[in-house]
Amino acid sequence: MANSRSGESVAERIVRVLETFDADRSAQTPSQIARRASLPSSTAHRLVSELVATGLLDRDESGQVRLGMHLWEVAQRGSRALRLRQAALPYMERVQARIRAHTQLAVREQDETLFLERLSHPAAVSNIARVAGRLPLHASSAGLVLLAFADDAARARILSRPLAALSPETVTDPVELDRVLRRTRREGHVVAHGYIEPVSTAVAVPVRERGEVIAALSMVLPRDAPTAGALDELRRAAAAIGRALA
Amino acid sequence: MANSRSGESVAERIVRVLETFDADRSAQTPSQIARRASLPSSTAHRLVSELVATGLLDRDESGQVRLGMHLWEVAQRGSRALRLRQAALPYMERVQARIRAHTQLAVREQDETLFLERLSHPAAVSNIARVAGRLPLHASSAGLVLLAFADDAARARILSRPLAALSPETVTDPVELDRVLRRTRREGHVVAHGYIEPVSTAVAVPVRERGEVIAALSMVLPRDAPTAGALDELRRAAAAIGRALA
Repeated sequence: MANSRSGESVAERIVRVLETFDADRSAQTPSQIARRASLPSSTAHRLVSELVATGLLDRDESGQVRLGMHLWEVAQRGSRALRLRQAALPYMERVQARIRAHTQLAVREQDETLFLERLSHPAAVSNIARVAGRLPLHASSAGLVLLAFADDAARARILSRPLAALSPETVTDPVELDRVLRRTRREGHVVAHGYIEPVSTAVAVPVRERGEVIAALSMVLPRDAPTAGALDELRRAAAAIGRALA
Repeated sequence: MANSRSGESVAERIVRVLETFDADRSAQTPSQIARRASLPSSTAHRLVSELVATGLLDRDESGQVRLGMHLWEVAQRGSRALRLRQAALPYMERVQARIRAHTQLAVREQDETLFLERLSHPAAVSNIARVAGRLPLHASSAGLVLLAFADDAARARILSRPLAALSPETVTDPVELDRVLRRTRREGHVVAHGYIEPVSTAVAVPVRERGEVIAALSMVLPRDAPTAGALDELRRAAAAIGRALA
């Protein structure tokens, strides 16, 4: 299980290799991977070969490397992410068919909003959330719900950090943010006007499994669209997802 | 990158640990993982700790271990699986809304059918395909399409192996299977009556990216349902997905 001289485990190096891939960088050479993962070239080449042998990475004829289907497969099987999105998808489709806007499912992961699913409507407004993408908890409506219902320690941790502005209307003052979170807990939903992009309003509700908030369901609407109907649909869907998970 | 005495790399051992998880075994103790991955207990405990430290696994208060959200995240970002299913999902939803049956997207992975997506209709017939689950290529309609359009070497490899029967009607004779595959190539679709379960008929068409067959779109219908309408919808969806990928 040899660790390198830096004390880093092979598992950590493998994760660093895998993390160099994203939607805009889906094929790379081992040398590019070495550079982006800050690994010695020989180490990266050897690790890539091992990962190709296991199917976690695929190598094409030109020598470029991609994430392997087998990585996707092992990551899905038995994962909470898959279980949650499979339970949620039929209800998300129903919401989306009625409201015709982007509908998203998100969880809190390492103090950020991680999007597990996104259904998009061709006619809907701009939306920067991506499946497997992240946004700050305090800026996205799903994140505000997740933060509002997080444990006190997590909330205190986030509120004590610098809060980045994604748009002129993102709440970056911790006192005001705390007020937004209290209201979110009290009302059981959030309405965020222009927190991420001035053109849109996002709404979100919690998804509960046996009483505990495990995810958030959100929708991105045009800035001045009415929100009550969308919130009603989201609440109904969240309740149905909770029942499907039980 | 120390290999064990058996010559196995750490990457291979990590994959073996990850492969012990599935939908029915989503939480395990390190000792269960050791047993199922056939690893020495001390090795498994150390590997699990390293994987927990990287976020690929999560450990709960009771000491049980699950696949981590971060594994799901790195496996999704920049993966062909995600790109393909994101392109396909809107068209799959449209097909499913019209035909009201299970709709699936699958690729060929290590000589099996790997299902990337499945939309289910509550009123639809039985369907054993699962997201991230596998079925034999020769038994599933999606697999027959993938096999029909595979390279000659892959097809010869599959046809030379024992072909398992999933139901009394699964084609297990290589000569007859070859005939089915030729017809599938000629007609551009397959209709499989009862190959997997006697109660259902599955239909499938190829999805092409720049001319090359990269996936199959399939639908599971009741045994005696008409298939022409479903095939029309699938063909239209497959063409639209191909355009979305281009």
